[in-house]
Amino acid sequence: MRIGKTSYRSVWRDPDGAIRIFDQTRLPWQVEILRLADAAQVAEAIRTMRVRGAPLIGAVAAFGLALALRADSSDAGMEATAAMLAATRPTAINLGWALEQLLDALRNQPREERVAVADRLAQAIADDDVETNFRIGRNTLPLIREHAGKGRVNILTHCNAGWLATVDYGTALSGIFQAHDAGIDVHVWVDETRPRNQGALLTAFELAGHGVAHTIIVDNAGGHLMQHGKVDFCIVGTDRVTRNGDVANKIGTYLKALAARDNGVPFHVACPHSTIDWRLARGEEIPIEERAEAEVSGITGLAPDGAPASIRVAAPTSPAANPAFDVTPARLVSSIITERGVSAASEAGLVALYPERSAA
Amino acid sequence: MRIGKTSYRSVWRDPDGAIRIFDQTRLPWQVEILRLADAAQVAEAIRTMRVRGAPLIGAVAAFGLALALRADSSDAGMEATAAMLAATRPTAINLGWALEQLLDALRNQPREERVAVADRLAQAIADDDVETNFRIGRNTLPLIREHAGKGRVNILTHCNAGWLATVDYGTALSGIFQAHDAGIDVHVWVDETRPRNQGALLTAFELAGHGVAHTIIVDNAGGHLMQHGKVDFCIVGTDRVTRNGDVANKIGTYLKALAARDNGVPFHVACPHSTIDWRLARGEEIPIEERAEAEVSGITGLAPDGAPASIRVAAPTSPAANPAFDVTPARLVSSIITERGVSAASEAGLVALYPERSAA
Repeated sequence: MRIGKTSYRSVWRDPDGAIRIFDQTRLPWQVEILRLADAAQVAEAIRTMRVRGAPLIGAVAAFGLALALRADSSDAGMEATAAMLAATRPTAINLGWALEQLLDALRNQPREERVAVADRLAQAIADDDVETNFRIGRNTLPLIREHAGKGRVNILTHCNAGWLATVDYGTALSGIFQAHDAGIDVHVWVDETRPRNQGALLTAFELAGHGVAHTIIVDNAGGHLMQHGKVDFCIVGTDRVTRNGDVANKIGTYLKALAARDNGVPFHVACPHSTIDWRLARGEEIPIEERAEAEVSGITGLAPDGAPASIRVAAPTSPAANPAFDVTPARLVSSIITERGVSAASEAGLVALYPERSAA
Repeated sequence: MRIGKTSYRSVWRDPDGAIRIFDQTRLPWQVEILRLADAAQVAEAIRTMRVRGAPLIGAVAAFGLALALRADSSDAGMEATAAMLAATRPTAINLGWALEQLLDALRNQPREERVAVADRLAQAIADDDVETNFRIGRNTLPLIREHAGKGRVNILTHCNAGWLATVDYGTALSGIFQAHDAGIDVHVWVDETRPRNQGALLTAFELAGHGVAHTIIVDNAGGHLMQHGKVDFCIVGTDRVTRNGDVANKIGTYLKALAARDNGVPFHVACPHSTIDWRLARGEEIPIEERAEAEVSGITGLAPDGAPASIRVAAPTSPAANPAFDVTPARLVSSIITERGVSAASEAGLVALYPERSAA
């Protein structure tokens, strides 16, 4: 995707295996490219959300394991690095999925082959993500076109599921970028997405960069907009989908799905195959990350003098709780859109797209 | 209510008729008492939300009109001042209600009597609010006791409906303060309530001041907590209730009511009689205030050096929209609690409490 005239992916590598990312904690104020030169730096970048988004952290972790093998390709080193990277974020399935892909391929390889195998496989994971997301967008396009006959199409999204959350294109936003490119008049209601404001910061940055009309709203406003006919449909990404179609995504997603159902507004979820956790039967089994209180009691932004600043926005007397994700039950999800197509949010629907996952 | 060892109301008067308020835009960082010496200062204080909360702005506006009559007690001056004060905030009914009470009483009075009449009536409105809110709390208490048998009672509230939103006690919080005083173990989940964070700032300040256990959460989190059985009931205030029981309240209230319904959690609304707008049949008729974009794209808090600071928290490329209230349909409201008792959210329920309002 583009920043100004230049095209980027959200992760790429230097010739020595070091990893290049945008420091997403600095966006949209500063476009700063970081070099991650060892596995500890990769783990720090994932943990502190310099990179975030379920598909992207999977790819970054895979590159991170490949990088670590250059320093230590022993079985013990490889397993320890993978375990350290897997522990950085608990909710997204893609992280563990990408690392498992590499470990499965590496465990039976002689040590001197491991870097090459890991490099190839990590790059394939990244390239597959790009192709996958392009296809997710292509499969989203007809759902957008459905609404285009009546004029401007108004779409509500929560958090960030654009190119910065993936290696490129994004999941929920991929179809929106493609619709815009196809000349459809789309407008996006962007939930700011407290506590970390990924919507107001990253989604808005991406949409502005691509020239897509959009308006930032507080997370409280979406229900009111739906009551007044101002939202044609909602589309979000997800960190994990269980076998029955339950969807874990950024905290607050469930509230928007409830409002969509109450107002007859379709609620779509876009994700790659790697986000579907076939081992889990239901959303209740998904571990939900509890993040630091300070994300609620404070917020970071830009001071009037142009410097980044963090301020306290809650009474100093008071504790805070910060569950980072919630689970939207399948019954509230109109469809799940993957690189294979559009399915009902149910085991039957998902298995129809992925017959190789049939339990029978 | 108390700040430290001292008891206060949220509005009172100097002997010359000037009005004293806490500057609520400075709380909880600084407890600063302002003197409003003319109607223009009163209007500014309401418009910029130095005082806010539907019952409180009604009382402040009444005192403001009484103050203005000292300078100009003519018919034209009185009507112009009332119109200016009424125009400061459009959604809360209490503002217009309080001013109408005064105008009705003043229009047939000789000019030399008007100050005394207005003073007496404005003070009565303030005193009635205190008594009314005490009774609302007393009527809320049995609903809290119902849950107390199972251990700690967890209550979720949105925005601020404590003593700072009224002349004293509060509406939604009055029963919580009384339950705490009665030795019931209550814990309050406090929605931060973007964009202005009245929950994280004012409700948390009030609860901390009274020693009530509480935890601040982002507005996105309440649905997740209800899914996990961590909320026994919700209680909120309101800016206007229509004849059929629809409830206008701070933006995002509707989303919490949907989550409560989806999880079998009761959702109560506490308000005085003056908040019920018998002239409006349904919530769709309530005007919804659209506030400034800057409230969404920025936020004010406390810098690490202890100074108040405003920072930008949204991409500078992007516009924002800021509807300040939403309407929760009566079907999602478990009960409306007033100074008269507890009623169903319906015309029949409200008329049973206020038979003098029966259309028959």
